[in-house]
Amino acid sequence: MNIIQLIDKKKNNQILTKEEIEYIINGYVSGEIKDYQMSALLMAICFNGMNSDETAILTETMKNTGEVFDLSGINKITVDKHSTGGVGDKVTIILLPIMASLNIPMLKMSGRGLGFTGGTADKLESFEGFNMDYTLDEAIKMVNKYNICEMTQSNKMCLADKKIYELRGLTSTIDSIPLIASSIMSKKLAVGCDKILLDVTCGNGAFASNIEDARELAKQMVDIGNKNGKETIAVITNMDEPLGKSIGNSLEIIEAIEFLKGRCEEDVLEVIKTLGAYILKLAEVSDDIEKNKEIIEEQIFNGKAYQKFIQWIQVQGGNINQIEDISLLPKAKEILFVTTNENGYISKINSKAIGELVNKIGGGRNRKGEEIDHSVGIILNYKVGDYVENGATLAYIHVNDYGNKEELIKEVRSAFEITENKTEKMKMILDVIM
Amino acid sequence: MNIIQLIDKKKNNQILTKEEIEYIINGYVSGEIKDYQMSALLMAICFNGMNSDETAILTETMKNTGEVFDLSGINKITVDKHSTGGVGDKVTIILLPIMASLNIPMLKMSGRGLGFTGGTADKLESFEGFNMDYTLDEAIKMVNKYNICEMTQSNKMCLADKKIYELRGLTSTIDSIPLIASSIMSKKLAVGCDKILLDVTCGNGAFASNIEDARELAKQMVDIGNKNGKETIAVITNMDEPLGKSIGNSLEIIEAIEFLKGRCEEDVLEVIKTLGAYILKLAEVSDDIEKNKEIIEEQIFNGKAYQKFIQWIQVQGGNINQIEDISLLPKAKEILFVTTNENGYISKINSKAIGELVNKIGGGRNRKGEEIDHSVGIILNYKVGDYVENGATLAYIHVNDYGNKEELIKEVRSAFEITENKTEKMKMILDVIM
Repeated sequence: MNIIQLIDKKKNNQILTKEEIEYIINGYVSGEIKDYQMSALLMAICFNGMNSDETAILTETMKNTGEVFDLSGINKITVDKHSTGGVGDKVTIILLPIMASLNIPMLKMSGRGLGFTGGTADKLESFEGFNMDYTLDEAIKMVNKYNICEMTQSNKMCLADKKIYELRGLTSTIDSIPLIASSIMSKKLAVGCDKILLDVTCGNGAFASNIEDARELAKQMVDIGNKNGKETIAVITNMDEPLGKSIGNSLEIIEAIEFLKGRCEEDVLEVIKTLGAYILKLAEVSDDIEKNKEIIEEQIFNGKAYQKFIQWIQVQGGNINQIEDISLLPKAKEILFVTTNENGYISKINSKAIGELVNKIGGGRNRKGEEIDHSVGIILNYKVGDYVENGATLAYIHVNDYGNKEELIKEVRSAFEITENKTEKMKMILDVIM
Repeated sequence: MNIIQLIDKKKNNQILTKEEIEYIINGYVSGEIKDYQMSALLMAICFNGMNSDETAILTETMKNTGEVFDLSGINKITVDKHSTGGVGDKVTIILLPIMASLNIPMLKMSGRGLGFTGGTADKLESFEGFNMDYTLDEAIKMVNKYNICEMTQSNKMCLADKKIYELRGLTSTIDSIPLIASSIMSKKLAVGCDKILLDVTCGNGAFASNIEDARELAKQMVDIGNKNGKETIAVITNMDEPLGKSIGNSLEIIEAIEFLKGRCEEDVLEVIKTLGAYILKLAEVSDDIEKNKEIIEEQIFNGKAYQKFIQWIQVQGGNINQIEDISLLPKAKEILFVTTNENGYISKINSKAIGELVNKIGGGRNRKGEEIDHSVGIILNYKVGDYVENGATLAYIHVNDYGNKEELIKEVRSAFEITENKTEKMKMILDVIM
C-alpha cells in the first residue's frame, strides 16, 4: 500500500478499506507515514468525510494503538460517562457520587483542560492532596469497594489518537464530525466500560454549534459504540450559555458542593437528572426514565450523594475540611463587579467568550503542562431569561493581581446580550440518541 | 498572522490577501510554517481553489523567493517556450534550432524527467559532452551570438516552488489547476523572458486529461503572465497518444534529427508549425499565423534549421559525429517486436502507459538523481487512425538485459486499442488561448 494513493483515494471521495485504515494508522504511529501526509489526509477527510464503517474501523484501529483496560475485575455493569466539553461543566463531579451512592460503579478517566473548556482533573485538584494517579488494579479495587474512582488520562492509551489530535490542532482539521467522533470513542473503547453514556454539548463554544451537527456527532458516536459491541446513548445538552453559574476550577467545586447539599441550579439539575436516568437505564436498573429521574433527585435531597462525595474526596486523598469549610478552597484576592446600564431580559451569555476570559485570567491553559490558577473564575449572577435593571450586577470576576481590570469588566459584560423582549429560560435537553 | 487561521480561511473557501499569501510563502521557506501545515493548506486549495488574483499573487511571491534573471543583455524580444509535459515530446529540441535559425533568440531552461514524462535535459545528454551548466552571463553571450542556449534548471530559483512542488508529490496535492499554473509560471517569470509561449498538453497522461481542464489551466497561466506584464499565449495540443513515434532519450534525439532533415512525422510537424508561428507572433515578426507556419516549414525543408541544430550541439560541447552517424548515439542491446493478432484500426495508444513502460525499462527515473539509460525506449510503428493486420508489428522495444520480456511485450501491446470501425487521425491543435 502507498499512502500517497490512499490520500488520493479519500480526496476523490472513495471509501477506505479496513486494511487501508490500519495501514494508515499503524504507519503514522511508527513514523513511516509523515505528519505532512497525515495532515493532507485529515484535510481531505474534513471535506469528504467518512462513512459509518470507516469511522468505526478508524476508532477501533486507534484504540488498538495503545493500552486497553480489562475491567472484568468489576462484577457489575460498568458505564462510562463522557462529555464533549463545555463551559462551567461540573457534571462529572456531581454525577459520579450520585451514581456511586446508588451502587452503580463509576470508573472515570478525565483529562485536563486545554483552551476555553475546563478539565475535570484540574477542578478536582482544587482539593489539597487529591490524587488521581492509580494503576488499573488499584482503580478496580476502589470501584469494587466504593463504586467510584477518578483517574487521570493514561498516556499509554490510543497513541494514534494522541498524535493525530495534536496534529489536527496545528492544521485546522479539528471540525470534522467523523474525526471528533472517532477520537472520543477510541478513548472510550480503550477504557473498557461495558456501556457508554455521552453528553453531547450543543451551542456556542461546543464542538457542535447547532442541533444538526450535534445530532450527527451523537449519531456517529452511538453508531461506533454499538458497532464495537458497547451499548451507547447520547444526550444532547444545551451549551448556549455556561452550565450553572460558576466557571473556574475552585468556583465550580463550590457550586458542585452546594448542589450536592441540595442547593441546585435549575439547569444543572435538569442535566444531572437526565444523564443519571440514562445511566440507570444502561446499568439495567430500570428503563423508566421518568422514574429514574426521581431516583436521582431523591439521592441528592436525602444527602446520600453528598456523603458519597465526601467519602470519594477522602478516599482519593483530598482534604475534606475544604468541603465542610469552602473558604479553605483556593480563593482569589479580589472580586470585580460587572454591572449593566440597561434594563431588559438576558437573551444570551456567550459560553465561549466566558470560557476564554476565565482562561485569560489564569484559570485555564493554552498549552499542555502550563500551570493554572485554581482560585480564579467568573460567577454569573443571572442566566438567560432573567430580567435585569440598570445597575444590576451581571457577574463577579474572581482575580489575582490582574492588570487592566476595567477592560476585563468590559469584556465580561460584552458576553451578555440584553433585549427588551421577554426571553425564555433555555431548554437544557435537546435530544436523546440511542 | 497565524497559519492555522489562514488554513481555516481557505478551508472555508475565503480569499487570501496579498499579505497573507506572502506570509505563508515566506514563512514556509524560512521553516516557521511546517510541512504538515503547508500540506493541509494545499489540500484545502485542491478542494476550494484560488481566484485569479490569489493565483497571480502566489506566483509572483514564489518567483521572489529565489534568483530572478535579468535578460536586458539580450537586445531582441525574448520568448520562453514551455510545455506542461508529455510522452515522446521532443518539441523543444526541434523548435529551438528552427527559431534560432530565424534569428529569434531562444534561451531555454529545461528540467530533467521525473515519473513517466521525459526531460529535455536528459534527452540532450544522449550526446557525449553536451553541457548545460552555464552562468547567466555565459548564456546571454551564447544567445547574442547563436540565438540559442539550453541551460539546466537553476536550483536557486523559486525556492518556495521547489519546496512546495516536492511536498505536493508526497501528499497527493498535484492536481490543482491554480497550483500547477502558479508553479509553472513562477519559474517562467524568474527566467525573465519578455513573453511566454505555452504548450498545454491535453489528454491521457497530461496534467489536463480533458479539454475543459486544459482550457482552464491555459487560461489561468495566460492570466498570470499578463497580470505580471508578460504577454502569454497558450496552445493546447493533443497528448491522447504519444507525440511522434519515438519514446526514450536517444530514440527521440534520432527522431528529432530525422525531422530536421525533413523526414517529419505529421503530428509533430503540425505542433512545431503552430508553436513556431505563435512564437513569431510574440516576437513581433508577423501576426499572420498561416504565413508564419509557412516560414517555419520552409526553415525545415531548406536545411537551415538542421544546420543550426548541428551548430547548437557543437557550441554546447556535444559530439556532432553522433548527428551525422546516429549509430554512435546510445544504443540498446536488443529490440523486441510487439505484434498484434487482430485486424482493425488503432483507436488509442495510451501515452501514460507507454511513458511508464519506458520508465520501467530504465529510460526514466522515479526519484531525483537516479541514473537513467539513454539507449532504451519504444518506437511506435503505427499511430491512431492506422489500419493494422494480424501479425503486424505495432511497436519495437529497445532494451538492455530486461528480465521478463514476454510480459513486457504484453504490457506494451495492452497500450494499444484496436477496433473494427475506421478511426480518424488525431487532431493535434485543440485550441489557442491568448
